[in-house]
Amino acid sequence: MHAKKIQFSRQATTFYFDAAFSNLKKLVPQKTSVLVTDEHVFAAHQKHFKGWNTIVLKAGEEYKVQATLDSLFEQLLAMKADRTWTLVGVGGGVVTDMTGYAASVYLRGVKFGFVPTTILAMVDAAIGGKNGIDVGLYKNMIGTINQPQFLLYDASLLKTLPLSEWRNGFAEVIKHAAIMDAPMFKELESRNVLFYQKNKVALQKLLQRNAMLKSKVVKEDEFEKDRRRLLNFGHTLGHAVEKQYELMHGESVAIGMAFAAKLSQEMLHFKGIDRLVKLIDQYGLPITAGYDKQKVFDVLVSDKKREGEQMNFILLEKIGKAVIRKIPLQEIYKLI
Amino acid sequence: MHAKKIQFSRQATTFYFDAAFSNLKKLVPQKTSVLVTDEHVFAAHQKHFKGWNTIVLKAGEEYKVQATLDSLFEQLLAMKADRTWTLVGVGGGVVTDMTGYAASVYLRGVKFGFVPTTILAMVDAAIGGKNGIDVGLYKNMIGTINQPQFLLYDASLLKTLPLSEWRNGFAEVIKHAAIMDAPMFKELESRNVLFYQKNKVALQKLLQRNAMLKSKVVKEDEFEKDRRRLLNFGHTLGHAVEKQYELMHGESVAIGMAFAAKLSQEMLHFKGIDRLVKLIDQYGLPITAGYDKQKVFDVLVSDKKREGEQMNFILLEKIGKAVIRKIPLQEIYKLI
Ligand SMILES: NC(=O)c1ccc[n+]([C@@H]2O[C@H](COP(=O)([O-])OP(=O)(O)OC[C@H]3O[C@@H](n4cnc5c(N)ncnc54)[C@H](O)[C@@H]3O)[C@@H](O)[C@H]2O)c1
Ligand SMILES: NC(=O)c1ccc[n+]([C@@H]2O[C@H](COP(=O)([O-])OP(=O)(O)OC[C@H]3O[C@@H](n4cnc5c(N)ncnc54)[C@H](O)[C@@H]3O)[C@@H](O)[C@H]2O)c1
Ligand SMILES: [Zn+2]
Ligand SMILES: [Zn+2]
Repeated sequence: MHAKKIQFSRQATTFYFDAAFSNLKKLVPQKTSVLVTDEHVFAAHQKHFKGWNTIVLKAGEEYKVQATLDSLFEQLLAMKADRTWTLVGVGGGVVTDMTGYAASVYLRGVKFGFVPTTILAMVDAAIGGKNGIDVGLYKNMIGTINQPQFLLYDASLLKTLPLSEWRNGFAEVIKHAAIMDAPMFKELESRNVLFYQKNKVALQKLLQRNAMLKSKVVKEDEFEKDRRRLLNFGHTLGHAVEKQYELMHGESVAIGMAFAAKLSQEMLHFKGIDRLVKLIDQYGLPITAGYDKQKVFDVLVSDKKREGEQMNFILLEKIGKAVIRKIPLQEIYKLI
Repeated sequence: MHAKKIQFSRQATTFYFDAAFSNLKKLVPQKTSVLVTDEHVFAAHQKHFKGWNTIVLKAGEEYKVQATLDSLFEQLLAMKADRTWTLVGVGGGVVTDMTGYAASVYLRGVKFGFVPTTILAMVDAAIGGKNGIDVGLYKNMIGTINQPQFLLYDASLLKTLPLSEWRNGFAEVIKHAAIMDAPMFKELESRNVLFYQKNKVALQKLLQRNAMLKSKVVKEDEFEKDRRRLLNFGHTLGHAVEKQYELMHGESVAIGMAFAAKLSQEMLHFKGIDRLVKLIDQYGLPITAGYDKQKVFDVLVSDKKREGEQMNFILLEKIGKAVIRKIPLQEIYKLI
């Protein structure tokens, strides 16, 4: 286990890389902590939860809603959890998003940390302090920005993660490479999911590289005025298709990246579209889906990233370099 | 209208004193703002809402719950309110608490301001950034601390406020005087509610004095590690009786202050108990209620201010000087 502490504007987060789940006992007191997880993670790793106060949520994006939080709050009250307690989200992005939000508003805020158990949560969702829940078709409409105290990385938790979820997480890894890490893009081109599943050291290095890359961007622009927006590459259209077509987050981001690459080609003469599409495919992710243009556009219009009649879109100048462009809604409608 | 800007740790709040409601147009754009109010305030001041996007909530503490927020969020989405919008809470503490919370989590945070319409909101609830909702019997269990951009004070809004609500608000004024403003305590002793209802200038001065007193305490200790706790004088027991006996907030605070004064007498030889009790009575507020000892204690134990087996209680050393003491739960149980 080795620690890296990142100072954000209001809080510091300590990352414990190459750690074991059992190290958690050294980070938080068992009596006044609650592990929040979902039923899949709980079933797959039951032994880890022995001796801990535990709240098990239903698994899946469809439970990332207020009703799940209501039940979480009731259980915290029943445990008489007070301001001195710590919540620890143990799971994928759904669990960490909900735990972070719950901790940010329970008793007007209690301490929290994460043990991410999916690739996606390890490289992206659990990092950067954004948390929240969905409302109807709209993803992450309600939430806060609030940094966890710590993240604990135990790659052995990934042994039980289905292949489809590995691919899902690699969408964000590809995203990071495409927008700001050309050398990592090259590394990814020479490997595939199976390679990382079999090489623990290469995997741990990749997880840490991605975690630090995202942390750096967030540190520079925690409240997303500017540079942090680059991380939304592939997400604008991605979010609009995700809920409607019950795609996985990573699948919809992959489709969104392919769309943004096309937009980049048309507007910025981006030349890397073939390399990007090939890489997405190499990691088992989709590049398109037969979506309903009008429906997708309607959801797009209610996106948080819309500002009046324009919308910020992240485009690529080249592999490893993204830029933000304000695009009129009409233009997007034409290109969808 | 004159402005006072207070810089809190993360945001600044501008107070517009002696203002008129119509000044609001100068502070926020009508097209991208929503006034959030309740049905009583809306009915009493309908003309003020003309030309504004408006959301009208049901009135009363029993609606300070998640279900009301759910409907608020739905209406914001239906209006296509995006990140550039501003929410303005126009109402008493229930409206400002809910509007502040809604604005803090809608799209992970949008701008907000308040036009308080009760004495209680003007001198207390709308100031200091605490917001939130109730869960079952527990008051303000869910919320954040987040400062409004502005507060607009229009004392003419109080013309429609029932007498019981005037008294309610004076409980917090008496609290401020008791804990840190002996000269104001003296002023209050020489006057009564009727006097302030008839003297607009004296009322405006009193409102501003209280608003600045609370702001100063909050500025010194926004996240309630220390000095801000003094503002909880009367609130610990107060909250525990409030919901159970359907008392008004001010009534329960008055009862809580009388209890805390007794505790102060026993533990710190506080000598001002008679003056305090007389003042509470002079402003038409209760000093006791026949409450169920066990029930009140049980709610007390789940109070946010509990820390393990102890509880912070605010006591008076003398009129105008409060102190914080950690008191074992057993002691409190004995004295209730
Ligand atoms: N906050 C952010 O900045 C951010 C960034 C990206 C994504 N997200 C959010 O993250 C969510 C997606 O994250 P996710 O893909 O991790 O989803 P998830 O939490 O739903 O996990 C995916 C599935 O894998 C299961 N699972 C998790 N860990 C497992 C393990 N070790 N073994 C076996 N099964 C396991 C889960 O139960 C679930 O069924 C979305 O809600 C998305 O909005 C948030
Ligand atoms: N956030 C804080 O720091 C803080 C501090 C103190 C109290 N509070 C909260 O404030 C709430 C109590 O505030 P409140 O007493 O203002 O309650 P309230 O908002 O319920 O208002 C009291 C009543 O007066 C009506 N009303 C309001 N303005 C009116 C007007 N001008 N004319 C006619 N009727 C009017 C309301 O509709 C309501 O029926 C509680 O929920 C309490 O927890 C919060
Ligand atoms: Zn993502
Ligand atoms: Zn109060």
